[in-house]
Amino acid sequence: MQALVYQGPGRKALEERDRPGIQASTDAIVRITKTTICGTDLHILKGDVATCKPGTVLGHEGVGIVEVAGPGVSTFKPGDRVLISCITACGRCEACRKGMYSHCATGGWMLGNSIDGTQAEFVRVPYADTSLYPIPAGADEEALVMLSDILPTGFECGVLNGKVKVGGSVAIVGSGPIGLAALLTAQFYAPAEIIMVDVDDNRLAVAKRFGATATVNSSAGDAVAQVMKLTGGRGVDTSIEAVGIPVTFQLCQDVVAAGGTIANVGVHGCKVDLDLARLWSHNVTITTGLVDTFSIPMLLKTVQSKRIDAAQLVTHRFKLHDIITAYDTFSRAAETKALKVIIEAGGVL
Amino acid sequence: MQALVYQGPGRKALEERDRPGIQASTDAIVRITKTTICGTDLHILKGDVATCKPGTVLGHEGVGIVEVAGPGVSTFKPGDRVLISCITACGRCEACRKGMYSHCATGGWMLGNSIDGTQAEFVRVPYADTSLYPIPAGADEEALVMLSDILPTGFECGVLNGKVKVGGSVAIVGSGPIGLAALLTAQFYAPAEIIMVDVDDNRLAVAKRFGATATVNSSAGDAVAQVMKLTGGRGVDTSIEAVGIPVTFQLCQDVVAAGGTIANVGVHGCKVDLDLARLWSHNVTITTGLVDTFSIPMLLKTVQSKRIDAAQLVTHRFKLHDIITAYDTFSRAAETKALKVIIEAGGVL
Amino acid sequence: MQALVYQGPGRKALEERDRPGIQASTDAIVRITKTTICGTDLHILKGDVATCKPGTVLGHEGVGIVEVAGPGVSTFKPGDRVLISCITACGRCEACRKGMYSHCATGGWMLGNSIDGTQAEFVRVPYADTSLYPIPAGADEEALVMLSDILPTGFECGVLNGKVKVGGSVAIVGSGPIGLAALLTAQFYAPAEIIMVDVDDNRLAVAKRFGATATVNSSAGDAVAQVMKLTGGRGVDTSIEAVGIPVTFQLCQDVVAAGGTIANVGVHGCKVDLDLARLWSHNVTITTGLVDTFSIPMLLKTVQSKRIDAAQLVTHRFKLHDIITAYDTFSRAAETKALKVIIEAGGVL
Amino acid sequence: MQALVYQGPGRKALEERDRPGIQASTDAIVRITKTTICGTDLHILKGDVATCKPGTVLGHEGVGIVEVAGPGVSTFKPGDRVLISCITACGRCEACRKGMYSHCATGGWMLGNSIDGTQAEFVRVPYADTSLYPIPAGADEEALVMLSDILPTGFECGVLNGKVKVGGSVAIVGSGPIGLAALLTAQFYAPAEIIMVDVDDNRLAVAKRFGATATVNSSAGDAVAQVMKLTGGRGVDTSIEAVGIPVTFQLCQDVVAAGGTIANVGVHGCKVDLDLARLWSHNVTITTGLVDTFSIPMLLKTVQSKRIDAAQLVTHRFKLHDIITAYDTFSRAAETKALKVIIEAGGVL
Repeated sequence: MQALVYQGPGRKALEERDRPGIQASTDAIVRITKTTICGTDLHILKGDVATCKPGTVLGHEGVGIVEVAGPGVSTFKPGDRVLISCITACGRCEACRKGMYSHCATGGWMLGNSIDGTQAEFVRVPYADTSLYPIPAGADEEALVMLSDILPTGFECGVLNGKVKVGGSVAIVGSGPIGLAALLTAQFYAPAEIIMVDVDDNRLAVAKRFGATATVNSSAGDAVAQVMKLTGGRGVDTSIEAVGIPVTFQLCQDVVAAGGTIANVGVHGCKVDLDLARLWSHNVTITTGLVDTFSIPMLLKTVQSKRIDAAQLVTHRFKLHDIITAYDTFSRAAETKALKVIIEAGGVL
Repeated sequence: MQALVYQGPGRKALEERDRPGIQASTDAIVRITKTTICGTDLHILKGDVATCKPGTVLGHEGVGIVEVAGPGVSTFKPGDRVLISCITACGRCEACRKGMYSHCATGGWMLGNSIDGTQAEFVRVPYADTSLYPIPAGADEEALVMLSDILPTGFECGVLNGKVKVGGSVAIVGSGPIGLAALLTAQFYAPAEIIMVDVDDNRLAVAKRFGATATVNSSAGDAVAQVMKLTGGRGVDTSIEAVGIPVTFQLCQDVVAAGGTIANVGVHGCKVDLDLARLWSHNVTITTGLVDTFSIPMLLKTVQSKRIDAAQLVTHRFKLHDIITAYDTFSRAAETKALKVIIEAGGVL
Repeated sequence: MQALVYQGPGRKALEERDRPGIQASTDAIVRITKTTICGTDLHILKGDVATCKPGTVLGHEGVGIVEVAGPGVSTFKPGDRVLISCITACGRCEACRKGMYSHCATGGWMLGNSIDGTQAEFVRVPYADTSLYPIPAGADEEALVMLSDILPTGFECGVLNGKVKVGGSVAIVGSGPIGLAALLTAQFYAPAEIIMVDVDDNRLAVAKRFGATATVNSSAGDAVAQVMKLTGGRGVDTSIEAVGIPVTFQLCQDVVAAGGTIANVGVHGCKVDLDLARLWSHNVTITTGLVDTFSIPMLLKTVQSKRIDAAQLVTHRFKLHDIITAYDTFSRAAETKALKVIIEAGGVL
Repeated sequence: MQALVYQGPGRKALEERDRPGIQASTDAIVRITKTTICGTDLHILKGDVATCKPGTVLGHEGVGIVEVAGPGVSTFKPGDRVLISCITACGRCEACRKGMYSHCATGGWMLGNSIDGTQAEFVRVPYADTSLYPIPAGADEEALVMLSDILPTGFECGVLNGKVKVGGSVAIVGSGPIGLAALLTAQFYAPAEIIMVDVDDNRLAVAKRFGATATVNSSAGDAVAQVMKLTGGRGVDTSIEAVGIPVTFQLCQDVVAAGGTIANVGVHGCKVDLDLARLWSHNVTITTGLVDTFSIPMLLKTVQSKRIDAAQLVTHRFKLHDIITAYDTFSRAAETKALKVIIEAGGVL
């Protein structure tokens, strides 16, 4: 089968690989119909993710059809259409019992990281019963690809951790796919204000279209002042960090109101400053988290009932044999205006 | 001044009364600009509310202008435009400290009940600092009249108590003004399904327009079966009782899913059956509650940011001198299709 | 092997049965070391539980040693000491994902009900990975038998559902084993008052010893007045129903304070009256629930750290061949002062 | 009257001052019976607290008798015994409505900071209705002095923010009065482990006596390793920072388990490092907060019902005329083993 393989820092290739087989009774083999590329895949390609070894098939998102179900799989059978969670969960360890699947004792983020991933014609999914989700008849597959990672991440790590509230105010720092996923899902809670902050006017225009009540271009250096002005000097109830660098985390600290919450979503490569000299008495909460994807069933219902238009995140479409072009398009997002790119693999639903 | 006075069961009249004066230092006198009639006013007129004595000016909703502020009032001054909560809260007793203003030791539902109310040119509001709310410049007054009682009631007693959830399913039994207020505010939480149940097709049509995903006319006697069918046999996560009679409370019990919540909003005049033989193992929660109106500031933000169109509840408008006609219109809602009727008093904002 | 078999209403016998075998790959066979008798077993013997057919081995509590682990069991291996949950959970259905194991689509309360139970030398436990719990070295087995059902029931359905609070007041109606389990676990939250209500002075004396701050004998008919007096006329923040008949549920309604919670734990055989004419405005919450046993790991830690002395619930000990005597002792609790009786089966840890 | 006056960095004196008088109708004048010294008073004396101007009477804790009640005070009258909150709350602003009294728009921490405090014979308390609490007959005054600040601080900022859980594990870094207050109140939630960390063996011995399940002397530099060993390598569910310097905040980050909470209580004078490179995926929550004292009524009930022995924090007693000696004793805690020192003022209850 064809598979996009990480070959070490800076190198990737579409290779011919053997189809994966069942290794444990709880495994399923899924024929991929659609997958996508995540910003994290770019991190891996830069060599930033030590757990991902050269030779690994990339990709942790996608939908497909069950090809083979191991003998310990009871929920799915061959032919079932499934949504693949980016997080593999055994469903029985202490972390899984709490719904903290990202810290599953023997699972977590495995696909396209510690084991072969979804940017291929087939993928082996461990603990299939608790790591795959059935796709309802008639569902829009492209929308569902957004449920593998990006929407649960924006929702769980941004919106839920950030305690977005009815009538509240929100600033989302970073208007890339993750920030936009937070923007879309923040609207589930009818906040009065959602201020999007970015340095790219195109992305801010998209944010406006996706429901932002105000946008702030932070390249001029006065983003804090602008957010404070927009909130009558109080700051926001929730600030969501969706970039992953010190300056954006600082911005989140600078605009959060007393009693507010900073929800970190960004993947950080270094430590940051925490202004405890000011914040110790500011009654703030700061949260971090890798997505658990416990919200996939809930989000699926919002997609099916049209409470959210997840498909609008998709800007480009490619075939699997063109995935190198897809990576190129996705990695030059400022020019190509790419948000999420859909990769159609061989599978046909 | 003119005031609508309860004269005993079945009798009311627009009388000439003295203007109210300050009785306690924390009182304010408010010149009413707009008020409305509540279903509870009809209950009083039937003689159902023992706490309301003949001679009382009716009405517990409205907006107006502060005419006089007692010496202990620090938040408001004459000329301030204010929204009147139906609940009077001292802000200092044990109940108020918890936000349970409806059970304030020396307040609670007083206006138009134990003291003169708002269907008059002026009203005395005790504990003004914690019972009035400032009206932002440019706000739509008619929309804000909906915040005195009906929207907080639907939201607090129906939606919040009922734990309406993103992607969840809701049945609201009763599509009168209160049920519709629950319908409007339930949408703050993006539930996948909101099923409205009523016996009046006109009200169900309104519900559809206000955002119901399905409607069920219960007059045929198969409402339970219809709701179960709409939910794939599971029942709803939240059922909201917005009528106040045994048969509608029974319906709420019959359609709630395991693990779900029944939120009672209706005012009941007698006891009901609770099916504990079935429900003891069904993991349900049942809530009751008089509105606390703690959510007024939050709801005000949703009105101001256009997350909710509260004014669409208003169907008719009258002057204070025509309030008898307004009562007639409101009490014949099935014919007149009245939801909320606005009464314009003498005050001009 | 020996097994206590339900033979239809009013009839039971210790029979010789075949050892159970693995039926599904996720099953385990457990050699029972200690089990016990539950009030629910008496209900079954009265013929009240339609789901339990004659011929079923009774019992849903116990500890033992894994004898055989099916090929799909990954957490346990033969020789492991395990605690058996009274609730069987697949760990993968929608209910299990929420921790509502009692409503597992293919599990729930099965042992000693829809399948053979634990009052035998061996038992087959379906979904072993998510229905058994490892026993730490050195743990007191008798204490752990209390974790199969009675302590999680008192804790989850009484204390957690009842929102017992630091400094709060609690009334527990019924001072049998379940009420006492609620009493013991309520103390996790340091309530200021725990008032136990029962008709049996012996049980009230036990309650006093187990930490009740006050006791009320309800046989004189003035229990409501006594509870109100003990709470300065306010009633209690939490009332826990641990009997299962209309009169005790009524008592719970009569003593709950405004803003309080009634947590039903008792198994009811008929409907009850709900005083909505009074309670609609009383801001109360009523909860029901079959135990989910999600709290077993948490409770295990409290037993291990000696925050709770679970073993004090044990009053009598019998061998499996004497289980008929054990039933007799347990069913005549008023005379024998039995709380929980331990049955030692053949297994040796 | 006698009053302990801050005279600028490093300087304080017991001066003769005029008795305070009513300035606003909501003020009360309280005759102090007992007060105490807080670590924050030492900070002020070092010149670290810019809001406290030379000439201010220090002290923000204490109990006393109402001498004069302003005309706007309705809850208290002269002769009432009262507990003084360290936080002054208007009870009507947006922050107060949420219970976040520390950020009251016109109140907050005023006593002994922006206005004269309690280390005097009399003190003026603004917003008396919502800043004083009635003392029940027969209460132990010394225990109640601990409710003005230290116990609510440990409880709200440490235990509640830190989400201490039944069966959970807690590390408290700092075993001074605040850390010990967190230790005492953490036991309300029956955690399985409470590990106290400090550099002073005497304080660790006190911690052991107050209920710590383990102690770690961090002066050897291996505190992280010790805590990890005590928790089987998992780290703690809750780590509470009760010192206020970078190294102790770092320790809290190093020992918190995935999914855990770091509750900052310490007053920090500079920024700290936040290890987002590691923590971004660790699902942690970090909280900060000045005490709101909303828990005073709840804590009062735990003191009255003997769920907590607050008086054991008191190690020394002085008369007001000896307050300079009291400061000396309190500031040399390592030698004197002082925790809280009671200052008896002229008032007699």
